Amino acid sequence: MIRIGIMGYGNLGRGVENAIRHNPDTELAAVFTRRDPASLKIATENVPVVSAAKAAEWKDRIDVLILCGGSATDLPKMTPEYAALFNVVDSFDTHARIPEHFRNVDEASKKAGKISVISIGWDPGLFSLNRVLGDAILPGSRNYTFWGKGVSQGHSDAIRRIPGVKNAKQYTIPVEKAIEEIRAGKTPELTAREKHTRECFVVLKDGADPKAVETAIKTMPNYFADYDTTVHFISDEEFKKNHSGMAHGGFVLTSGRTGKDDENGHVIEYRLKLDSNPEFTSSALLCYARAAFRLNQKGESGCRTILDIPAALLSPKSHEELISTLL
Amino acid sequence: MIRIGIMGYGNLGRGVENAIRHNPDTELAAVFTRRDPASLKIATENVPVVSAAKAAEWKDRIDVLILCGGSATDLPKMTPEYAALFNVVDSFDTHARIPEHFRNVDEASKKAGKISVISIGWDPGLFSLNRVLGDAILPGSRNYTFWGKGVSQGHSDAIRRIPGVKNAKQYTIPVEKAIEEIRAGKTPELTAREKHTRECFVVLKDGADPKAVETAIKTMPNYFADYDTTVHFISDEEFKKNHSGMAHGGFVLTSGRTGKDDENGHVIEYRLKLDSNPEFTSSALLCYARAAFRLNQKGESGCRTILDIPAALLSPKSHEELISTLL
Repeated sequence: MIRIGIMGYGNLGRGVENAIRHNPDTELAAVFTRRDPASLKIATENVPVVSAAKAAEWKDRIDVLILCGGSATDLPKMTPEYAALFNVVDSFDTHARIPEHFRNVDEASKKAGKISVISIGWDPGLFSLNRVLGDAILPGSRNYTFWGKGVSQGHSDAIRRIPGVKNAKQYTIPVEKAIEEIRAGKTPELTAREKHTRECFVVLKDGADPKAVETAIKTMPNYFADYDTTVHFISDEEFKKNHSGMAHGGFVLTSGRTGKDDENGHVIEYRLKLDSNPEFTSSALLCYARAAFRLNQKGESGCRTILDIPAALLSPKSHEELISTLL
Repeated sequence: MIRIGIMGYGNLGRGVENAIRHNPDTELAAVFTRRDPASLKIATENVPVVSAAKAAEWKDRIDVLILCGGSATDLPKMTPEYAALFNVVDSFDTHARIPEHFRNVDEASKKAGKISVISIGWDPGLFSLNRVLGDAILPGSRNYTFWGKGVSQGHSDAIRRIPGVKNAKQYTIPVEKAIEEIRAGKTPELTAREKHTRECFVVLKDGADPKAVETAIKTMPNYFADYDTTVHFISDEEFKKNHSGMAHGGFVLTSGRTGKDDENGHVIEYRLKLDSNPEFTSSALLCYARAAFRLNQKGESGCRTILDIPAALLSPKSHEELISTLL
């Protein structure tokens, strides 16, 4: 039994809790929160909710602590802090800051003799794995990443900051034509506009001017100006009814050539279609918690990414079963 | 520089030779053949062609020997034999015999203090990796493997054994409707017929009866009787012109559910579209040769599969470059 701790009980934390029920070699030992533990009701019976401040006391009762905080401010501090006490897994997804995060966490884990696994999920995560595999197998290939259809939290937040906006959701949608071209073996240079469109559903405050809000969205630099953007104004009710989902997904395509004169083209496509972005990420986090536990059991320490962990370590199945049934 | 030896100079061997030119950290040290070395002209200049019988003399001049023999009779003997001398990589693809092959090769490699990597390619290979990742991340999920459109060597051979047949090529074609259902989140039970169709292009000998040949094909147990099969009779010229390609590919789809009441569905799709089946396999073999070399440099020995090797070991790029550019 792998004793799992969950740090943070938002969408990701609840997703890990659900995933544990699907993985009989894991058990939930405790949920840690920065809120008042008494205010939190978790789904699993007879599992304590503990103040984050007391996590250190659980050092010997937890095999892997899964860190379910946000990447902007929580994880850069949280992961090195808890890596000094536990084997940890996080879903740190600020691509530009991964090398720095890796160094900080690696140092803490090595000192503690523990394993940490960072940036697990689908991007970074499974998409990264596919980018690296494609790049290694087909040197000189081009890889393309498309996101969606799914909600971009950052873009939704940007719309909500516009005066007159009460609520908003922004969907990133991959341009099917671009994907078809790549599937057909072409390697186009694609602008932002040619890769994704943006569709926004906005609830206005009373008296707000829809024309002004639409212009503010469509001309917003970085977020929208470089894209074909559609804006729909909807009611509170419609927003709640049709736009509370957390579906997401995307594509990684690698297009490369082999042969004496590069005469043969090859296209590798990896595609995810996820009804729940956080639950899928949580399921991946739990798998990599299993790997972290096993690596640490073998006496290893330090930070790992999805690129450093063999697939066999993720599965509860024995090596013999894997090679006879799935290889 | 990783010094590569190639054992066997058929389609796979030539593919490895081409791949080496795309991987500047590798160099071709020698090509080994069971034919008369003088009869073989290879594409790379100033590289010796050596009799397979003399391979042992090259023990210290080769870092990894890539075994480019067939799975039916060559590799079951060849891989353990050379694993006793070299780090080796093979593409052994008889799924049912992998566990036995693994044990034989593992024993030889451990005794020799070398690394062997078996069953590299796309199936077994990258498809296996995706089956295991999908199964681990979404426990209880179903996975589906579709092959094609591409040539099945076994089915083509079976047709050629029918009296009156001069030449034949059989294409395995996935049923698009089945794939669409799975993509839509369904998890159908599929018969052989519902997953693949078979299309045959046949050149008849003079005087052969097309009706009799067509019946012999369509009613052949195991190979064709359980499938919707189409038979086309064509001329020698058309055969040469349109059916000498080696394109192949396929799909691995994983469909699973998460959530408190399994309310959320997720579909993972991995797809390959390959102009040249052997060249793609060769490119994968060379990547795993790099990994074999690195693992052995770290002092490891024994047999590995694609499930046991982290992606970072496949890439010529440094860990730092990988995590800052592709993670």
